[in-house]
Amino acid sequence: MPRDNDAISITTGPIPGSKKVYEEGTNGIRVPFREVVLEKSANEPPVRLYDTSGPYTDPDVALNVEKGLPALRSPWISARGDTEPYTGREIRPEDNHRNMGDPKAVPEFPSKRAPIKAKAGKNVSQMRYAREGIITPEMEYIAIRENLGRSDFFGDGESFGAEIPEYVTPEFVREEVARGRAVIPANINHPETEPMIIGRNFLVKINSNIGNSAVSSSVAEEVEKMVWSTRWGGDTVMDLSTGKDIHNTREWIIRNSPVPIGTVPIYQALEKVGGIAEELTWDIYRDTLIEQCEQGVDYFTIHAGVRLKYIHLTAQRLTGIVSRGGSIMAKWCLAHHKESFLYTQFEEICELMKEYDVTFSLGDGLRPGSIADANDQSQFAELETLGELTDIAWKHDVQVMIEGPGHVPMHKIKENMDKQLEICHEAPFYTLGPLTTDTAPGYDHITSAIGAAMIGWYGTAMLCYVTPKEHLGLPNRKDVKDGVITYKLAAHAADLAKGHPGARLWDDALSRARFDFRWRDQFKLAMDPETAEDFHDQTLPAEGAKVAHFCSMCGPKFCSMQITQEIREFAEKGMSEMSDKFVEEGSELYQPSKKESPEQIKIEAAE
Amino acid sequence: MPRDNDAISITTGPIPGSKKVYEEGTNGIRVPFREVVLEKSANEPPVRLYDTSGPYTDPDVALNVEKGLPALRSPWISARGDTEPYTGREIRPEDNHRNMGDPKAVPEFPSKRAPIKAKAGKNVSQMRYAREGIITPEMEYIAIRENLGRSDFFGDGESFGAEIPEYVTPEFVREEVARGRAVIPANINHPETEPMIIGRNFLVKINSNIGNSAVSSSVAEEVEKMVWSTRWGGDTVMDLSTGKDIHNTREWIIRNSPVPIGTVPIYQALEKVGGIAEELTWDIYRDTLIEQCEQGVDYFTIHAGVRLKYIHLTAQRLTGIVSRGGSIMAKWCLAHHKESFLYTQFEEICELMKEYDVTFSLGDGLRPGSIADANDQSQFAELETLGELTDIAWKHDVQVMIEGPGHVPMHKIKENMDKQLEICHEAPFYTLGPLTTDTAPGYDHITSAIGAAMIGWYGTAMLCYVTPKEHLGLPNRKDVKDGVITYKLAAHAADLAKGHPGARLWDDALSRARFDFRWRDQFKLAMDPETAEDFHDQTLPAEGAKVAHFCSMCGPKFCSMQITQEIREFAEKGMSEMSDKFVEEGSELYQPSKKESPEQIKIEAAE
Repeated sequence: MPRDNDAISITTGPIPGSKKVYEEGTNGIRVPFREVVLEKSANEPPVRLYDTSGPYTDPDVALNVEKGLPALRSPWISARGDTEPYTGREIRPEDNHRNMGDPKAVPEFPSKRAPIKAKAGKNVSQMRYAREGIITPEMEYIAIRENLGRSDFFGDGESFGAEIPEYVTPEFVREEVARGRAVIPANINHPETEPMIIGRNFLVKINSNIGNSAVSSSVAEEVEKMVWSTRWGGDTVMDLSTGKDIHNTREWIIRNSPVPIGTVPIYQALEKVGGIAEELTWDIYRDTLIEQCEQGVDYFTIHAGVRLKYIHLTAQRLTGIVSRGGSIMAKWCLAHHKESFLYTQFEEICELMKEYDVTFSLGDGLRPGSIADANDQSQFAELETLGELTDIAWKHDVQVMIEGPGHVPMHKIKENMDKQLEICHEAPFYTLGPLTTDTAPGYDHITSAIGAAMIGWYGTAMLCYVTPKEHLGLPNRKDVKDGVITYKLAAHAADLAKGHPGARLWDDALSRARFDFRWRDQFKLAMDPETAEDFHDQTLPAEGAKVAHFCSMCGPKFCSMQITQEIREFAEKGMSEMSDKFVEEGSELYQPSKKESPEQIKIEAAE
Repeated sequence: MPRDNDAISITTGPIPGSKKVYEEGTNGIRVPFREVVLEKSANEPPVRLYDTSGPYTDPDVALNVEKGLPALRSPWISARGDTEPYTGREIRPEDNHRNMGDPKAVPEFPSKRAPIKAKAGKNVSQMRYAREGIITPEMEYIAIRENLGRSDFFGDGESFGAEIPEYVTPEFVREEVARGRAVIPANINHPETEPMIIGRNFLVKINSNIGNSAVSSSVAEEVEKMVWSTRWGGDTVMDLSTGKDIHNTREWIIRNSPVPIGTVPIYQALEKVGGIAEELTWDIYRDTLIEQCEQGVDYFTIHAGVRLKYIHLTAQRLTGIVSRGGSIMAKWCLAHHKESFLYTQFEEICELMKEYDVTFSLGDGLRPGSIADANDQSQFAELETLGELTDIAWKHDVQVMIEGPGHVPMHKIKENMDKQLEICHEAPFYTLGPLTTDTAPGYDHITSAIGAAMIGWYGTAMLCYVTPKEHLGLPNRKDVKDGVITYKLAAHAADLAKGHPGARLWDDALSRARFDFRWRDQFKLAMDPETAEDFHDQTLPAEGAKVAHFCSMCGPKFCSMQITQEIREFAEKGMSEMSDKFVEEGSELYQPSKKESPEQIKIEAAE
């Protein structure tokens, strides 16, 4: 049951029917899982599911939003000996877009830690360690996490050239990070994060977005958005806040977040210049990056591929530039008649990122905003630049993922994946949807889940969720949950189709429960146990119906599953005798319907 | 606004923002469309959308549920001169599973028509006419309907061998029906139906299911289920009622239905033998077929492919036989040690179907009920038999479609389509989903819409909807709408990907409205205008926000669409001068970020 924490309404407590378990590794590693213990009649071991929800679903962890989560990774980071604390950048009024002492402001997080950064000349990125042959505790943790404690494997699938191992070893994690095929977003100033990996040879991940409310909300409400979306499966969270209190709100979120946090730093930079794109400068932007590096943001969306020469390509589009970051930079470039500073200063950005291990998420500022604009010249021109920037980042041993569209009809999805793999040398692809039609506003979590499942199958490593409110308004709590679950199921469908060796264990466990009429096990194993049980109870609310050997679709007298069970018993007992008998009686039993055309229905004995 | 009709609550009135228009053809043909007139500022012609809702959305038609809809096709049927009225089979108590005069019974439909059937030796199927070279008014009607009054074309797509014409002619309709690649479900005893076609060279269609309520409901409520699902886009409706009052309820539904009605006759036959599968006989089944032929059922799901010899193949499955019809027949076969009478008497069934023009929907009684069972031996064994039966039906000039799975992971979907096309010689495929994962009960409209969109793209002609309550309970009104809209968007995504020449007009019109901030046009063009407007208003309820040049996602100051519009204007005015200036200034503007490595960022002038 969700409990209130310290009178601040953060949702805590286990997912109904599941419990938090940990698998231990070396280095004090304890990897959390959501474990579902089945009814005794199932005679099956518990089912272990990937768990993004952090300590919030562990009733044994004492939580305090004002202190933040335990700094899980701090001992690992310290032990590497390549970082040092320092006096960070001072917080300025413009960081929160507030005057000092504004009583309406979101308060500062009370238990701030001094920032750390790499010692001079050091690069603290997971990629650097990987390339040096070092297996970090983060990598060990991830190996345990990706294996889901499984011993069974199913290799059935079509992975389009992915190289998914039967079993993930720490060394495999290291190799994938070293060659840039996977990223571990893990800013050294976000030690609270539970390590996770994004790459096409691992489980497909999903991101959910949160943003501050225009109507001033409480700190708890902002933290709760993150807790709520990770509860249902968000693997990372992007804080897309604009307006006021960006800095302080972000601090509260990061300190309480068990998952990597991404941002689009240009949003905050724009606030600092009063929303006027032309007034942005490299200095303001760079200062914003440092501000966010020190806070612990794990990945930055940077639209460095929006080059001046590409902008005119969008003028004839049906929906022009729909990316906020892309349009800000396009406006800046045109106003100054200059190449984007994100592009020209890219190496300087790399230098900064490696001091904190922030991962690039190279933004697709020219992504299509409609079916009509999919896979056009501007989109792919930008992708070429993202490929070029990937090489530069990798030269600096900085981790990179690549953002992708957008709105794409089904027949054009695979081209996106194929080009991205080729141009960006298998750097992880991180896509928004894509939406497969523009005609269903109000249902864009679904129009996009179709595209997301497909592109995930083709090789996309992380899917950015879309809520039912996309294009229309701001998502509420239900919308966020709908978006997260929808993307979780799309990601899982992709895992199944890729042939991820552990994916089908979950489907099979649930289907066995369904077939055996273990209703409670069905609910417990569902991605969303609450909704599954609620939907069942709307038709058959009686407690007895949860142990009944029938359901509301057919009722007790007429049940196909029950009939099948009888057939199975019958078959097991008597099929061979019966088959014999059947073959023996042969043509007597098989009368063609029309004597004049006996050849029309072929008479075959049972095999 | 929905109005009440004669104090019986049937939803009537136009979809908000749309109006009913008709395009006229010869033979008194008037084909309905949902037309969206855009704001003047759009400077665009009205958008014409496919309309399945029948007279219920036409405020000019006087409706009376007790009289039923106008018998649109009666003059066409009469004019063919090959049918005659006769005294139909008498209704018996067992048809409704009631004692005579039971006061709780659903009353008989008051305005019953005498049934008609083919004159002796005649075959009144649309396939027969097509093969005789006759273009029926039904075919003319369909040609107009499929073209959506369009003059623009987009041929962009991947159709996997479908042969979609730029413009549908009546002759094309005839050819497709003649060769069995499309069906027109149109029982001569259902003249109220507005002709529609199911085939992979036409728009992808969707079916929604209804069933009587266990708790005795009013006649109006049963009719309303059909009206409600066709209002939102159901192209056909299957009445899957069981229990009591099946006959009378169906009569009310058919008389009031503008779309073809399908049934699974074995369900009613089973009621007649008290639910005991073993007691079914060919005579009872045949009598049920005649009963339903006379009422006007347009297509019958017949599980004639569940052969005795295949049943043992299911014993080792994870979820055995999950089709109700399939399990009934399997039980019958095993109990009697006999081949299914649906298989042995198949030609007799064909003889009956052609007297009324009922279309076969050859049921997939052995479809997989879980990811684990997808594409297994039993499933494909049955498909082989369905191919054999297709040939037999076609020999009788009886129309056929083939039902398909079920639960299939993405990588196994295409094999289903490819095998079906080959084995069943391109007879239209009609699939349930398929669900692409078993792990999300409560969200199976989405797990299955992913599979449905894909298999629709690959060539499936009609998609049977799944509601959020699938596997859990009986759908309510909201669930039905969610299921229909979800499948409508999946079908449209498939049309787009196949390159249906008119499909993208809808997306483009909506995207232009979005880009121009014509909020009201966006709502009107949405598949579900009510939800789109409601979602918008939840964030920005003010009436002014519907004409505002911004939305709630970014707010007035910071709007990517607005910035793009500025870029476009700028680009249109000054791009060429600006580009010149830019090239001229050349390397001054393009400073590499690091002097020591100028080669790392390529300096390119604007193209």
